[in-house]
Amino acid sequence: MAEIVTGAMVVIGDEILSGRTKDKNIGHLADVLTAIGVDLREVRVVADEQDDIVAAVNALRSRYDYVFTTGGIGPTHDDITADSIAAAFGVPCDYDAKAYAMLEAHYAARGLDFTDARKRMARMPVGAVHIDNPVSMAPGFRIGNVHVMAGVPAIFQAMLDNVVPTLRSGAKLLSDMVHCPYGEGTIGDGLTAIQKAHPDTIIGSYPKYLDGRFWTELVVRSRDAGKLAAAKAEIESMLAGIAATKAS
Amino acid sequence: MAEIVTGAMVVIGDEILSGRTKDKNIGHLADVLTAIGVDLREVRVVADEQDDIVAAVNALRSRYDYVFTTGGIGPTHDDITADSIAAAFGVPCDYDAKAYAMLEAHYAARGLDFTDARKRMARMPVGAVHIDNPVSMAPGFRIGNVHVMAGVPAIFQAMLDNVVPTLRSGAKLLSDMVHCPYGEGTIGDGLTAIQKAHPDTIIGSYPKYLDGRFWTELVVRSRDAGKLAAAKAEIESMLAGIAATKAS
Repeated sequence: MAEIVTGAMVVIGDEILSGRTKDKNIGHLADVLTAIGVDLREVRVVADEQDDIVAAVNALRSRYDYVFTTGGIGPTHDDITADSIAAAFGVPCDYDAKAYAMLEAHYAARGLDFTDARKRMARMPVGAVHIDNPVSMAPGFRIGNVHVMAGVPAIFQAMLDNVVPTLRSGAKLLSDMVHCPYGEGTIGDGLTAIQKAHPDTIIGSYPKYLDGRFWTELVVRSRDAGKLAAAKAEIESMLAGIAATKAS
Repeated sequence: MAEIVTGAMVVIGDEILSGRTKDKNIGHLADVLTAIGVDLREVRVVADEQDDIVAAVNALRSRYDYVFTTGGIGPTHDDITADSIAAAFGVPCDYDAKAYAMLEAHYAARGLDFTDARKRMARMPVGAVHIDNPVSMAPGFRIGNVHVMAGVPAIFQAMLDNVVPTLRSGAKLLSDMVHCPYGEGTIGDGLTAIQKAHPDTIIGSYPKYLDGRFWTELVVRSRDAGKLAAAKAEIESMLAGIAATKAS
């Protein structure tokens, strides 16, 4: 019998509780965890209040194998997730040297000031490990069994794709890549349909921009080699169809 | 200074945690509570497990002024909300005479068997008060400060519209009605735009069907008489526009 692995989620953000922003991350995390065999058992949505975040994270990290948080890792005063997670673990929160250097180089390359607000994004609980952010640079982090990620859905999804291969689950997660010469706007609808038709796979889409052209890296993951191959074949067939249309 | 009134929500359902169903009720409750001045402070999504439901409801009902639950009040074996709320309050859960009679009459009028499964929907914690369900009959209920409603968004929204006028909040909620001779399909998009343009109002839409024709009762609520009148005027102007189009 496969081992049962459990997870819980903490959604951090006044904007969800006020209704101004409608959460899209609960459903996405639920889909991904279900696909890889981790049981999502509980979700809590809490305000931007350190005591509330600490209480939720500590209640859930002791009860479930994994905790995933979204939100509150941006540059503004109300982004208090890093401090709150540090408080939950009883460790200091400080500038992470690697994150600081990455962000400093990122803004320098764009001729933008590395302001105090932007520096905030390099703060982490001491002892935390980076979760790469392929979209907007500022890394998330993992400490203990708690994975701290962004609230913006596209960034959360990209970070989660980097976390998934590190999770213990019933069967090894296989992965394959398809190079896509088009931007996400061209393939989005088709890719959505393929993801729906292949529920036991996770299809990640990473937009790239180089020398004035958009292209996309598509990553297909599954625990079943046959299902992975079937989804990959359908993506390749979609791309061939787009190429034929553009050529005609 | 206006009194601060707080609320919390418990979303009950394995289907949300598995990702099969994407929750739409958190965002709606957040919008409604914000509009009437009740602060939504926390949301928990829990599985169809009595212990989890009891723990969430008891933690939240002691901390916040109001608790709102969605899900688990249907006819199937996994609908365990009524039993769980009764357990949370330490009272028996039994058939409610009024709900039983309503449902019995409802199914008799349609020539349908009043099966054990359907009878389940008449079970409530002893001492609970009905929350009317204008869509599908089976009532929700209130016990103490906990409001128990359906998970299907259209039904949840209709029940919540009946709960809102009973809630204590900073200012009296005003209400006005517009008779709409068209079905919801005709007015849906326009009404959505009007609701968006008037965030400090709550516009409820109640579909009706009589003698082979659809019509709709529209209810506008706000704490501000001027804002209520502005939203109502825009609805009336939309209806006049539809009438002109149909006549031409």
